Amino acid sequence: MLESLKEAVCDANRMLPAYGLVTFTWGNVSQIDRESGLLVIKPSGVEYDRLRPEDMVVMDLDGNQVEGDLRPSSDAATHVELYRAFESVGGIVHTHSSYAVSWAQAGRDIPCYGTTHADYFYGEIPCLRALTREEIESAYEKNTGLLIAGEFLRLGKDPMAVPAVLCKNHGPFAWGKDAVEAVHNAAVLEEVAKMAYRSEIINPRISPAPQPLQEKHYFRKHGKDAYYGQA
Amino acid sequence: MLESLKEAVCDANRMLPAYGLVTFTWGNVSQIDRESGLLVIKPSGVEYDRLRPEDMVVMDLDGNQVEGDLRPSSDAATHVELYRAFESVGGIVHTHSSYAVSWAQAGRDIPCYGTTHADYFYGEIPCLRALTREEIESAYEKNTGLLIAGEFLRLGKDPMAVPAVLCKNHGPFAWGKDAVEAVHNAAVLEEVAKMAYRSEIINPRISPAPQPLQEKHYFRKHGKDAYYGQA
Amino acid sequence: MLESLKEAVCDANRMLPAYGLVTFTWGNVSQIDRESGLLVIKPSGVEYDRLRPEDMVVMDLDGNQVEGDLRPSSDAATHVELYRAFESVGGIVHTHSSYAVSWAQAGRDIPCYGTTHADYFYGEIPCLRALTREEIESAYEKNTGLLIAGEFLRLGKDPMAVPAVLCKNHGPFAWGKDAVEAVHNAAVLEEVAKMAYRSEIINPRISPAPQPLQEKHYFRKHGKDAYYGQA
Amino acid sequence: MLESLKEAVCDANRMLPAYGLVTFTWGNVSQIDRESGLLVIKPSGVEYDRLRPEDMVVMDLDGNQVEGDLRPSSDAATHVELYRAFESVGGIVHTHSSYAVSWAQAGRDIPCYGTTHADYFYGEIPCLRALTREEIESAYEKNTGLLIAGEFLRLGKDPMAVPAVLCKNHGPFAWGKDAVEAVHNAAVLEEVAKMAYRSEIINPRISPAPQPLQEKHYFRKHGKDAYYGQA
Repeated sequence: MLESLKEAVCDANRMLPAYGLVTFTWGNVSQIDRESGLLVIKPSGVEYDRLRPEDMVVMDLDGNQVEGDLRPSSDAATHVELYRAFESVGGIVHTHSSYAVSWAQAGRDIPCYGTTHADYFYGEIPCLRALTREEIESAYEKNTGLLIAGEFLRLGKDPMAVPAVLCKNHGPFAWGKDAVEAVHNAAVLEEVAKMAYRSEIINPRISPAPQPLQEKHYFRKHGKDAYYGQA
Repeated sequence: MLESLKEAVCDANRMLPAYGLVTFTWGNVSQIDRESGLLVIKPSGVEYDRLRPEDMVVMDLDGNQVEGDLRPSSDAATHVELYRAFESVGGIVHTHSSYAVSWAQAGRDIPCYGTTHADYFYGEIPCLRALTREEIESAYEKNTGLLIAGEFLRLGKDPMAVPAVLCKNHGPFAWGKDAVEAVHNAAVLEEVAKMAYRSEIINPRISPAPQPLQEKHYFRKHGKDAYYGQA
Repeated sequence: MLESLKEAVCDANRMLPAYGLVTFTWGNVSQIDRESGLLVIKPSGVEYDRLRPEDMVVMDLDGNQVEGDLRPSSDAATHVELYRAFESVGGIVHTHSSYAVSWAQAGRDIPCYGTTHADYFYGEIPCLRALTREEIESAYEKNTGLLIAGEFLRLGKDPMAVPAVLCKNHGPFAWGKDAVEAVHNAAVLEEVAKMAYRSEIINPRISPAPQPLQEKHYFRKHGKDAYYGQA
Repeated sequence: MLESLKEAVCDANRMLPAYGLVTFTWGNVSQIDRESGLLVIKPSGVEYDRLRPEDMVVMDLDGNQVEGDLRPSSDAATHVELYRAFESVGGIVHTHSSYAVSWAQAGRDIPCYGTTHADYFYGEIPCLRALTREEIESAYEKNTGLLIAGEFLRLGKDPMAVPAVLCKNHGPFAWGKDAVEAVHNAAVLEEVAKMAYRSEIINPRISPAPQPLQEKHYFRKHGKDAYYGQA
């Protein structure tokens, strides 16, 4: 079942240590097959260099495990909620990458200080409010997904234009049209988080990049008038 | 004598440079065989890539060298005291890993700012008071162990729930059920120390993670209701 | 056409990841053949480890693509303007290297704090003003080049004595007598930016290096009385 | 002439990139043969991976080049003065390693904040005053050596107990009984400089390690009562 998707998801998970985004088993990637409504996700606590396509877990959008001998990632319920809410999203990744987590622990949005950020993310990358005790104690991972979806709706953010978020005191989720793009965006997020951190130290009175510059860079890579890369 | 334990301890010592936790010979790992009451520890000042199982030193819980041609790690007396005080501990590691040492030099506990920390450590990681001149000049390494044990008792901390400590102006000790888990916890400590450092720079008015979130993450990985990883 | 130049430019582009100056495809190198007035530049969005000499794009100094099936780097118009303005420049590189970008995002010149800087750059490395909305919306990349050239003229800086600049909220351009020297200077810039950042943290009341020291180091490596390296 | 010494010095120079202490050719190592009064030093501007023993330059203590087709390191005159002043020193290294340079640019001594420092350096690592214009313009490299020697005398520091120094706005020199120990000390200096930097950020009101702790660690590794390492 979904053999090629399992291979893709296995490969995408193995990109996490290659990009320096994880320590031990602290990250997981999934991808959805929209036609069948099934998603494939990493099993919980398995090391990346032992991961094989046949270890992947298949789930449906009600959160049921459909196939696989191993338990899915403990964050699976968050992935499920995001696929339910964000119809254009095809792949999702969660990591504990160091700079993104540091912003999440600090409880701050990452402002758009430059074109590296604007090339991938339209405006700041939001850090969510803390979950309430009740949200944590009832269905923590599901409520994390619901909060992300709800906040994007409330803030009027298009998830494909801001393909990442910080969960307060926790860490980032990133996404994209598939698992590979999600991992790519997670790597960009980490780089952007690192440079924003350093920029604030160099100039504590720093301001976000001018709006026209942000738009120029975002739209030279995205949308119908894009001219970055090959057609 | 204890051949397989020597191999395990040798391997665990060699994980230190692999995890980026040591420069030169600045770290040592031991593991105890509770049945015989003997522990195996790295010899002092020997480089990791030359270390062989037969170089390991066997000691008893009175601090006597029972086997081995080489001198044990200069920190051996600290290991001995910790094994005496913490009955559930099976492996111990000392390193000079950079971020953990920086907190130790700064003389500060590492607050629990997020889930990466809470997944492994229940509450802050304490930094001890300085040893007195008398404690240093009489039996420095033994007194270091006694201070760690005494402070955990005084603070009411379970050493298996907080498997690391910072010795002021010195560096970290970490432990676990065996040498591998001890090294694993030392690596987590370093990562947590790094992210706490960066989080405070990003937000100087930062607070620890909410208590319900800390508990959720700690108990989803530890205890009878844990659901992280494979059963 | 220009086969050996294409090889040189391809090789120089591949030095970017080797020197740790780029993430993904975030950098581009060009070199000019002054005799023909043609320059060779990296194609847009192509990964470095797939780059072949035959993928390189040939352009003239009016910004026309003269040869190549692929689109040139989206920053090509900036390169063209710099070659037009700076006659002694033979190679140009643009990166998003982390420390240089952090200074650019902070909107600050990099002061000359020491001899590492003075060995390569005579005086501070300037950070330009922001482009206006009109400059961005009309011909962004061309106007970036015009601004760099105009500011060097206004500040009386010799581009060969200060072979790099920071574009505000964007990142660095560096150059040299050829592509290899340009990449070398980009790597020095990154190192200098990193050490200036750290120096300011260590001493917030830091001053630039004394002028005689700056001159001693600059002129022991450059000009007719240089005595660094082999004759 | 001095073939085995040339090999040793060549090898020690090649340790610099292996330890991450140099970018490009920014570092040089020498060692002296006290019997003949001749020293062997790296040639100027040659890359480490091309360096061969036969490229090494032989000099006498009057600063004359005795053998070798290549020019010696531009810092050779500093090495010569240090060998003249410090009779117990057998090897010297100069680098632009990042954290040590950052302290030198900041113009600050590195305080002894912990045992990692105290294991190798007795007390703070001094940062010298700036050279005067006259000292720079007359015989810069020789005067650098004279200043280091003069300051150690004035401060009453034993160069073997404090085997490194920071030259203001420039960078570190380190030394030892031979070239290998000098490079080892340069690597320790860099690590110590990094941790001191981070410790001050974590606790801006930090104090140096208590004197008894500094002495305990220094003397457990040095002198007749040392018990670190193997006898």
